[in-house]
Amino acid sequence: MVAGIIGAAGYAGAELVRLLNGHKKVDALCLGSVSLEGGRIENVYPNFLGKVSCPLVKPEEVVKASDVVFAALPHGVGEAFAKACLEKNVSFIDLSADFRFDEDEETFKAWYGKGYVHPELRKHSVYGLPELNREQIKTLSAAGPVIIGNPGCYPTGASLGMLPALAMGLASGETIIVDSASGITGGGREPQRSFHFPECSDSISPYKVGAHRHIPEISRNMQKMAVIFGGPAPKLIFTPHLAPMNRGILSTVYIPLKKESQAQSAQSAVRPPSKETEEKTEEVRGLYAEYYKEEPFVRVLPQGVMASTGRVRQSNYCDISINMDQEGSTLIVITAIDNMVKGAAGQAVQNMNIVMKFDETEGLDTVPALF
Amino acid sequence: MVAGIIGAAGYAGAELVRLLNGHKKVDALCLGSVSLEGGRIENVYPNFLGKVSCPLVKPEEVVKASDVVFAALPHGVGEAFAKACLEKNVSFIDLSADFRFDEDEETFKAWYGKGYVHPELRKHSVYGLPELNREQIKTLSAAGPVIIGNPGCYPTGASLGMLPALAMGLASGETIIVDSASGITGGGREPQRSFHFPECSDSISPYKVGAHRHIPEISRNMQKMAVIFGGPAPKLIFTPHLAPMNRGILSTVYIPLKKESQAQSAQSAVRPPSKETEEKTEEVRGLYAEYYKEEPFVRVLPQGVMASTGRVRQSNYCDISINMDQEGSTLIVITAIDNMVKGAAGQAVQNMNIVMKFDETEGLDTVPALF
Amino acid sequence: MVAGIIGAAGYAGAELVRLLNGHKKVDALCLGSVSLEGGRIENVYPNFLGKVSCPLVKPEEVVKASDVVFAALPHGVGEAFAKACLEKNVSFIDLSADFRFDEDEETFKAWYGKGYVHPELRKHSVYGLPELNREQIKTLSAAGPVIIGNPGCYPTGASLGMLPALAMGLASGETIIVDSASGITGGGREPQRSFHFPECSDSISPYKVGAHRHIPEISRNMQKMAVIFGGPAPKLIFTPHLAPMNRGILSTVYIPLKKESQAQSAQSAVRPPSKETEEKTEEVRGLYAEYYKEEPFVRVLPQGVMASTGRVRQSNYCDISINMDQEGSTLIVITAIDNMVKGAAGQAVQNMNIVMKFDETEGLDTVPALF
Amino acid sequence: MVAGIIGAAGYAGAELVRLLNGHKKVDALCLGSVSLEGGRIENVYPNFLGKVSCPLVKPEEVVKASDVVFAALPHGVGEAFAKACLEKNVSFIDLSADFRFDEDEETFKAWYGKGYVHPELRKHSVYGLPELNREQIKTLSAAGPVIIGNPGCYPTGASLGMLPALAMGLASGETIIVDSASGITGGGREPQRSFHFPECSDSISPYKVGAHRHIPEISRNMQKMAVIFGGPAPKLIFTPHLAPMNRGILSTVYIPLKKESQAQSAQSAVRPPSKETEEKTEEVRGLYAEYYKEEPFVRVLPQGVMASTGRVRQSNYCDISINMDQEGSTLIVITAIDNMVKGAAGQAVQNMNIVMKFDETEGLDTVPALF
Repeated sequence: MVAGIIGAAGYAGAELVRLLNGHKKVDALCLGSVSLEGGRIENVYPNFLGKVSCPLVKPEEVVKASDVVFAALPHGVGEAFAKACLEKNVSFIDLSADFRFDEDEETFKAWYGKGYVHPELRKHSVYGLPELNREQIKTLSAAGPVIIGNPGCYPTGASLGMLPALAMGLASGETIIVDSASGITGGGREPQRSFHFPECSDSISPYKVGAHRHIPEISRNMQKMAVIFGGPAPKLIFTPHLAPMNRGILSTVYIPLKKESQAQSAQSAVRPPSKETEEKTEEVRGLYAEYYKEEPFVRVLPQGVMASTGRVRQSNYCDISINMDQEGSTLIVITAIDNMVKGAAGQAVQNMNIVMKFDETEGLDTVPALF
Repeated sequence: MVAGIIGAAGYAGAELVRLLNGHKKVDALCLGSVSLEGGRIENVYPNFLGKVSCPLVKPEEVVKASDVVFAALPHGVGEAFAKACLEKNVSFIDLSADFRFDEDEETFKAWYGKGYVHPELRKHSVYGLPELNREQIKTLSAAGPVIIGNPGCYPTGASLGMLPALAMGLASGETIIVDSASGITGGGREPQRSFHFPECSDSISPYKVGAHRHIPEISRNMQKMAVIFGGPAPKLIFTPHLAPMNRGILSTVYIPLKKESQAQSAQSAVRPPSKETEEKTEEVRGLYAEYYKEEPFVRVLPQGVMASTGRVRQSNYCDISINMDQEGSTLIVITAIDNMVKGAAGQAVQNMNIVMKFDETEGLDTVPALF
Repeated sequence: MVAGIIGAAGYAGAELVRLLNGHKKVDALCLGSVSLEGGRIENVYPNFLGKVSCPLVKPEEVVKASDVVFAALPHGVGEAFAKACLEKNVSFIDLSADFRFDEDEETFKAWYGKGYVHPELRKHSVYGLPELNREQIKTLSAAGPVIIGNPGCYPTGASLGMLPALAMGLASGETIIVDSASGITGGGREPQRSFHFPECSDSISPYKVGAHRHIPEISRNMQKMAVIFGGPAPKLIFTPHLAPMNRGILSTVYIPLKKESQAQSAQSAVRPPSKETEEKTEEVRGLYAEYYKEEPFVRVLPQGVMASTGRVRQSNYCDISINMDQEGSTLIVITAIDNMVKGAAGQAVQNMNIVMKFDETEGLDTVPALF
Repeated sequence: MVAGIIGAAGYAGAELVRLLNGHKKVDALCLGSVSLEGGRIENVYPNFLGKVSCPLVKPEEVVKASDVVFAALPHGVGEAFAKACLEKNVSFIDLSADFRFDEDEETFKAWYGKGYVHPELRKHSVYGLPELNREQIKTLSAAGPVIIGNPGCYPTGASLGMLPALAMGLASGETIIVDSASGITGGGREPQRSFHFPECSDSISPYKVGAHRHIPEISRNMQKMAVIFGGPAPKLIFTPHLAPMNRGILSTVYIPLKKESQAQSAQSAVRPPSKETEEKTEEVRGLYAEYYKEEPFVRVLPQGVMASTGRVRQSNYCDISINMDQEGSTLIVITAIDNMVKGAAGQAVQNMNIVMKFDETEGLDTVPALF
């Protein structure tokens, strides 16, 4: 099978190259790049020398030559390729936001500043967060080639942190706050002042507070989750930060609990967590573990082990640790992903595996790097 | 004047040495260390070679020789020195938690596991967050030597972020969440696995979620602030993280606004911030700027400039940027401090300046390092 | 096949676990640890959760249960296990220095402060730098179980940088200088002040100048290389540095060229490299590429691509770039390895593959991580 | 006194702003920027908010308004400003290479690709490495306004490492190798792929091997030093590296010793340093300490303390540690500077102090930052 990648020279594209190179069902790669067409991927990333040798061709040639096409392009430019793929009976896995909002063009337009080029494509598209939408992906794929709207990096970690609490009705329905920190690969390959080493090294800073484009994506996911249980979707507040590290996203998700889910606390003064709170925490941890027990890429960590981006490095895992505030009234879920893998290229491969009916872990079955 | 430092060989102690070395009113230093007694500070920190040359003596000798004494000791071991200082008519500035809780020994005991050794000392002690307590510090100092309970690092950034909102009655009284990230100097000088370079570099992780000892300190500060306006103190949720950088604490403080303070939002769908929200944000920014306008070490940043630990590096500044969630209902205040300066040694010097009636900025009047 | 690892909880041991977990010929692992016996590897390194689950047993049990044994132990404690393995007809791959000096006990004693426990074992041992010794490893392995003295991290990068120049007689025989920088995983898992994040982050420093134990190991390798060509071995000067990064060793190797190999330079003033120098550089690059053309893990980089530790990250590659001083009289070879892979665990697996007659690249056939 | 800075918005310019802001003889700053003219320095660097508030004006206005002018401009564009300053009777301190080569226009042209615009200005210019040229700077300054060719960053650390050995005739005259690693601020403020965080973080790499423009500058300095003793200047080999840190340059300088200066070594095998070698090292350390004993900014470190960039952070110090190879035949001098201070802006201020007859340490008298 030939796997095609449009936008192969960007960071997410190159990470796709790396992952697909080790994928047993992929016989060959066809790599496309608009800006570097005519070059070779191993010259752009000398890491690949001796392992991957591949010219960078026109995107149109990728569509022509491939049995599945990934696109790691800026928002708003990939729809034509998606259309061409469908016409050719080939599935299209899109890492941009173009297909993340399904038929809700209004929300897309409000946050991304442009409308859909081919709105009708959404009949063939599905949002690719397997832990939330696996059945829909499978059902749609059974009927023919599909378009996958591969999730954003922050929405992946944030959504997996709140899914069990919402789907099982633990959440009170009050505002959920997601406070996240991302490594700097999240900003992509093009040099910019914010990602210039002396400007971002040894410093941490938030950005786009209350205005990040991942807000509507996480919110939409929350609505879907709330529907599972039958409750109303809580409001979302989301703050992303830039941390001085290469990879990874850590999300701290604050979920107010329903009164009956809260630990009993008779204390009026501020005191360390009581035994009841600790037991309640362990109980919720058990519920999360149970909820995710069949998921190959979600690890609900044992008590006492804290999620950390360093422990999922280079892997497709989402690690989750369950915590509680000192009073036992708000669940504090920590999730850690590698933003380039589960937050981008790895999840895209996972989606390909589902769409193509491969083993879902094929090509992603690696131990996280230790350092 | 001789300034004494007990615990001079630890990170906070050494930072005090650095700052006091450049302080015009300080003629000499007297440095004490229990573990390194008999050594010299310039051998422990060769950075000091040629600038500071000073033996490390017994703590008792520091008390004897000094006109003001700083203590950077573990919690629970400094009270005897505080007592000895008062008896000698010398003020004592304590960087541990021993004097942060005033007469509330119960809270101290609940979180630190031991009671006060000399409870009566609290008649002479005051919590040293100048922006909250300057008048009390001055009043008490006017009456004789004092003990300063120098604030914890996280409580400094967290408290300064919420002070205007609570004191001016903007906050609704609902739970305030503080999500903070600290550089690794916060863990002190002793090697530990968590601070071993390969374990913490290129990774971010939370710790002591819902159980950090700074929770009761921030809560107590919130109570004091609420009293200013006359409202009840909100509950606090606090999550500290360890970020792969040397210095700095960034705190993201989520403060639900009173309904009348919220921006009007008629939107049912999730949309980018409206003009009303942006105006409301700017209005609150103006209120914060006004509130802090006489403060020498608080900078309410202009619109469009985001607080970042890199911009307060090596300085006593607390930078504050004002933001709002997309609906304009929750204030998101970002504060950045250098954990070793405003979060520890710098604030201690600021307190000394107030106590000794020096210019409050003496020895702290530096431009933040650029990188 | 069962692969055993004694010292599995240290950094090199854990990296062996990670690599062997993906090795197709390895059916099971048996992990030994003296200090953590009774624990489990996935609790020591939660990165392994869900992928590797294995108790840590007594070293003796590892010997008993395994078909090949790796030892990642301090110097001087592994000989008994080596002996036990041989007696059991099992090969032993030793990551310590105990078997790196063959029969030259005097040199080992001079630098490591102790003699051999079982000197006779050296009849069955061979130094495991495949690019230098592959035939010897194969020959010895053909006769029965062997002991591999797996090379030190610095000696691997340094030796591969000079091997072609010495073996092909390009070097003048004058002193060769190796100036290296290592990531901090090289210091191992135990917390120490030198590896405490605030002490080593954002700083670079040399250590053990003129006194590092890898000096005699590199020197011995140089003697072997000189013998290939028939010349005398040059003297070695070696300086290691600690750089603020997790992994990788970069070595800059200065090799004075024989007069006939030098570019012709008639310049008396200091001028940029002439065309002759550039051609000479390219010629030597061609010789290096030719020399290593069959080597699966050495990449002689194309002109214009500089070796960098970031480009071999997580891989078993040694990248080499060829440069010359401005006059064309000294070859400046840059080599980059991942200290934990080609510099330790990866090379150990490569040696196992040779000894066990597996494909030499089995388990090591990965693209370097991009970030 | 008004100090003017042309190119104030670049990194070296901004560091000058920071240092001059704390300089007691400087009453006001006049800041010029070509690209950001019309803006304000505190908007470019919010670190300055509340401390420095200054518009960015046309370079011509800086010349007009200032009593001394610094230029931190690209090579080849500052000569006109130098001329204008001299005509106005104002000294000009140039951080570019334009005035580093005195009357040797040929060398400048060969390495920088253009000739001098106003060659006659070199009658009024002097190379500003005070430890080498202090008397010349003073003599020329006594006669009127001067132009200072402020040294390059690498040449500062490299030259200070070899000056005593050459001036006292310890060096054999054989090739001296300088192997240096620089922090990434050395690349300046403009974003480039090489300095993009994900490309340079957690990795080390050399660049411009045998071709860096600091080669002729160091070589020229070596000639001057050799003249002091009367010997011929050794050849230079220089390799710069980029290390993943913000500030600092570490240089490892290999200086072959004259036979009579070498430690006696009768060993034929490679052995750890003998007592004779250690004594010889200490003797040379003493000579270096004696040579630099009056220098305010050079610290020859005590035995056992290794130079490290972290220990000179934010200061104008050059730290030097003296080492020897295992045989005692080559001196290995390690120097550490902060590339932005002693390697650029700090040394420029030091030169201003000499030229203006201020105390040479004024404005530079700070303890290195601890982290």
